[in-house]
Amino acid sequence: MPVVLEPIGIIRSCFKEKFGIPRQPGLVREARARLELLPPFDRPEAVRGLEGFSHIWIIFIFHANRQGTWKPTVRPPRLGGNRRIGVFASRSGFRPNPVGISAVELAGLRFPGERAVLDIRGSDLLDGTPVVDIKPYLPYSDSRPAAGAGYAPAPPDPQLPVLFSSRAQAACRCYRPGDGTDLQALITALLQADPRPAHHRANPCRRGYGFRIFDLDVRWRVQDAAIVVEAIVAARDENSDPGRRPDE
Amino acid sequence: MPVVLEPIGIIRSCFKEKFGIPRQPGLVREARARLELLPPFDRPEAVRGLEGFSHIWIIFIFHANRQGTWKPTVRPPRLGGNRRIGVFASRSGFRPNPVGISAVELAGLRFPGERAVLDIRGSDLLDGTPVVDIKPYLPYSDSRPAAGAGYAPAPPDPQLPVLFSSRAQAACRCYRPGDGTDLQALITALLQADPRPAHHRANPCRRGYGFRIFDLDVRWRVQDAAIVVEAIVAARDENSDPGRRPDE
Repeated sequence: MPVVLEPIGIIRSCFKEKFGIPRQPGLVREARARLELLPPFDRPEAVRGLEGFSHIWIIFIFHANRQGTWKPTVRPPRLGGNRRIGVFASRSGFRPNPVGISAVELAGLRFPGERAVLDIRGSDLLDGTPVVDIKPYLPYSDSRPAAGAGYAPAPPDPQLPVLFSSRAQAACRCYRPGDGTDLQALITALLQADPRPAHHRANPCRRGYGFRIFDLDVRWRVQDAAIVVEAIVAARDENSDPGRRPDE
Repeated sequence: MPVVLEPIGIIRSCFKEKFGIPRQPGLVREARARLELLPPFDRPEAVRGLEGFSHIWIIFIFHANRQGTWKPTVRPPRLGGNRRIGVFASRSGFRPNPVGISAVELAGLRFPGERAVLDIRGSDLLDGTPVVDIKPYLPYSDSRPAAGAGYAPAPPDPQLPVLFSSRAQAACRCYRPGDGTDLQALITALLQADPRPAHHRANPCRRGYGFRIFDLDVRWRVQDAAIVVEAIVAARDENSDPGRRPDE
């Protein structure tokens, strides 16, 4: 008995590709996004009372993954990418049912043209992500601060300092995203999480990396035990590949 | 673009009807259940590594609700059942997409006949609930103990003492559920949450109530500022109505 879900909203976020996105929500508070509800779910009364909650659950679909390709085991980045664990012991998007849950901060509710829009912070969601539900976060039933968490007891420590070239710093001063994001703070937080594939962290190389946020390409490399943001330039095309490295 | 989900498992629990079930997970630790994975998702390697986690998320379908009947507002029991809030500001099962999330304690993993079965505690799930996903609980991204929670900042206080007639007490001693549940402790915890409809709490009456757990009918009433369990008897039929009151 399959169950059919219909999107009730869409995420609009600065994350235009998977590479660079925080691996869990809440890690990068500077990451803002908005959730635009879709008709007929966008009526203001459908979110009445939500303004009293500081956090919400977003139940979403991993839409950028190929479907029909689940495997019983996955290799989470937290284990260096070379140990396999069960798909149900992971939060990987490659799962039998491509549903994700994300606890995010509710920064505000707006009703432009009588349609509900939620402003959120601490998002880990790709632009265009379909949302199938919103629930209030209830600390007394959702919060288990002492829960034992196997191979992922804490967020990864920031490992390398993040430095900006003067050119990149100037770009941060020039570009002001409409949603008030502090671009330099956002890029710093994203890079402190070190989005490189695990085998690159183990065997560092001087190759350049890039990811796209807003309509910008952020280009960086690892050099002398630091992550150096070399340039931030206007993205040239709409369809950038996840994980693409501009210097290759 | 609708999304089709396929159940990966089924809940087997003592809760045979909605009336009496804890209103949120984690409130009644004595409530045990098992999650039986379905083929082809029941292979032991699909849960490898999960044994390191004390808590898991169960993503499930509210299967006992009529579908196609969502309304933009609901009346949560926490607000006395007479104030309407938005469906997305509630955890009600009557929602556009009937998906629920439940953080429960993982009490054990078993592999009878090479098929994965999870033993859980603190369940609020109806027997037969279809499960569409299992995820490890990650305290660093899922736990927000200080989250502000609008109209539901804390679980309802236990309001009335729960007393057992000598007949009911004897029944608790005789009936030993196979999963090791302490029946008297479970019934006490369920009744301390006071499952009566809000308008009955406001205007108490001496009518009897009943709910079904395991294959037992638990019959109780409110009397002299206490909840009195009068009898625990073998259930007579398989299809009991939710909220049915045996004395009516």
